[in-house]
Amino acid sequence: MARLVTRLTRQLGIDHPVLSAPMALAAGGALAAAVTRAGGLGLIGGGYGDGDWLEREFAQAGNTRTGCGFITWSLAKQPHLLTAALAHRPAALMLSFGDPAPFAAEIASAEIPLICQCQSLDHVRQALDAGAAIIVAQGGEAGGHGHRRATFPFVPEVADLLAHESPDTLLLAAGGIADGRGLAASLMLGADGVLVGTRFWASREALVHARQQAAALSATGDGTVRTSLPDIARRLDWPKPFDIRVAANDFTRRWAGRDEALKAAIEQEAPAYRDAFAAGDPDNAAVIVGEAVGLVADVPSAGEIVTRMVDEAAVLLGERAQSFLS
Amino acid sequence: MARLVTRLTRQLGIDHPVLSAPMALAAGGALAAAVTRAGGLGLIGGGYGDGDWLEREFAQAGNTRTGCGFITWSLAKQPHLLTAALAHRPAALMLSFGDPAPFAAEIASAEIPLICQCQSLDHVRQALDAGAAIIVAQGGEAGGHGHRRATFPFVPEVADLLAHESPDTLLLAAGGIADGRGLAASLMLGADGVLVGTRFWASREALVHARQQAAALSATGDGTVRTSLPDIARRLDWPKPFDIRVAANDFTRRWAGRDEALKAAIEQEAPAYRDAFAAGDPDNAAVIVGEAVGLVADVPSAGEIVTRMVDEAAVLLGERAQSFLS
Repeated sequence: MARLVTRLTRQLGIDHPVLSAPMALAAGGALAAAVTRAGGLGLIGGGYGDGDWLEREFAQAGNTRTGCGFITWSLAKQPHLLTAALAHRPAALMLSFGDPAPFAAEIASAEIPLICQCQSLDHVRQALDAGAAIIVAQGGEAGGHGHRRATFPFVPEVADLLAHESPDTLLLAAGGIADGRGLAASLMLGADGVLVGTRFWASREALVHARQQAAALSATGDGTVRTSLPDIARRLDWPKPFDIRVAANDFTRRWAGRDEALKAAIEQEAPAYRDAFAAGDPDNAAVIVGEAVGLVADVPSAGEIVTRMVDEAAVLLGERAQSFLS
Repeated sequence: MARLVTRLTRQLGIDHPVLSAPMALAAGGALAAAVTRAGGLGLIGGGYGDGDWLEREFAQAGNTRTGCGFITWSLAKQPHLLTAALAHRPAALMLSFGDPAPFAAEIASAEIPLICQCQSLDHVRQALDAGAAIIVAQGGEAGGHGHRRATFPFVPEVADLLAHESPDTLLLAAGGIADGRGLAASLMLGADGVLVGTRFWASREALVHARQQAAALSATGDGTVRTSLPDIARRLDWPKPFDIRVAANDFTRRWAGRDEALKAAIEQEAPAYRDAFAAGDPDNAAVIVGEAVGLVADVPSAGEIVTRMVDEAAVLLGERAQSFLS
């Protein structure tokens, strides 16, 4: 198997510059550990903050080194979960969607690298103020929550900002990356590595219903949408400007443009949505994937995904890149 | 100067896989010719169809080989302009935003390569049916008109479609590409070259008011928006689903969310907008740039832009790519 060396792999002591995203509910200890064992680094999805779930998933990862990620605005309601996560000595602690400042000191004093996921240049400056070791520049093509910048121009713009203001801070690209092409392209754009969601969502280790995964295999990138409907149905009070990218389905079509109607019917709709999600119903609960779902055609092991990405990227950065120069 | 060889450079007989976008009003003969002279291929922007303008700009290009692009739905109202353009024996004829089928036969019988710009997988299939030699996969981060897919995942998804259904059709990436990083990344994603708008919009040869260019230099990618407001103000009847990306300014903020109000006030607002545009007023007329404006910091010659892009990409695909493999 090929190996890819960047500032990220040296700094984190890993073989490949590939991190799995801490997807709420989907990224448990088994997925994170599998990514780490394959040479990347897996992040457990602390999500909306269920302390028992978190302990169980850290236990699942066992002695394999993993990181952990939280939804920042949700963590603010239960800050003790950060303390609990840090007690496991994660390889990195990632914060997304909200101001990282209130948590920075505790993470720094634990000497755990802070990763901040950013959707705008203002977020990047906020992350630098909080002492982030690693910035994730996330494009809006990503599955799950995010905002509207696009990965392709956002990553080099953030790279330029870091080069000027904080050259030792590392940069990960996120959003739309599902294979070796995306990994190689990210490195060309100035990233030190990638954070990958959708591709690992469709892995054997992900905590995702098989019916949902099966539905995703036939989805295209054209068929995803950014919306607030799943958050309304789940009664999750997401702050602006964030919304969520999902595969369009009966649920998103039924309520399209009718956020207020869904809110008005929430007493009936919330339980219906919850039941549909629990059943893995891909028509009536959100299939939380990004545009890169159009590049996903199977549900292999997470380790196989890492190997494929790295091997493909190595060929592209080697023989293929050289072929353009001849 | 470095040279980059791809299927595109061989097929078009050019030195570098860089085409300048046929930006309506902005891409005249001087810009197109300068890009060609630097080793790429420049496309004159046939835009909304002004026959006199088109003749003048082909004359400006003189004996330098250039291509030409049209807005397809607008060309359908004046199909004789295609005949006029083909009489100049352009290096390629590009169609964007609408069904290319009605024009395919005339272009084919002139033996001019057809380039089709696509914003969805359906567009790509339509373009293949029309016999396109080259597909442009355009992400919504592009300046000017477009739709919502993002360049980073859209390009490889289109590459896969072409590999399966039409492997001899070439692929260009467009949207968010302004420097050598974007060029190198596009090649890694599976493109044979790039189509570049915003970066050439901010060139000395572009037919863009200096006040507008100056305003763009301080804009960031975060500060651009997709909107229909400039089209409403110009009384341009753009079909769905297309809208236009521009730098947010006083005009877009004044009418944000109020398309209908602008339509109702159009008798006053259309002349005001037209006058503001003619004066290069960057606050009251659209500054038509994409997210890549955040990577643009000067207004050099178009030839200098080509040279910089290619030299930077060559270093990235050479030394830099090798550094990851060691």
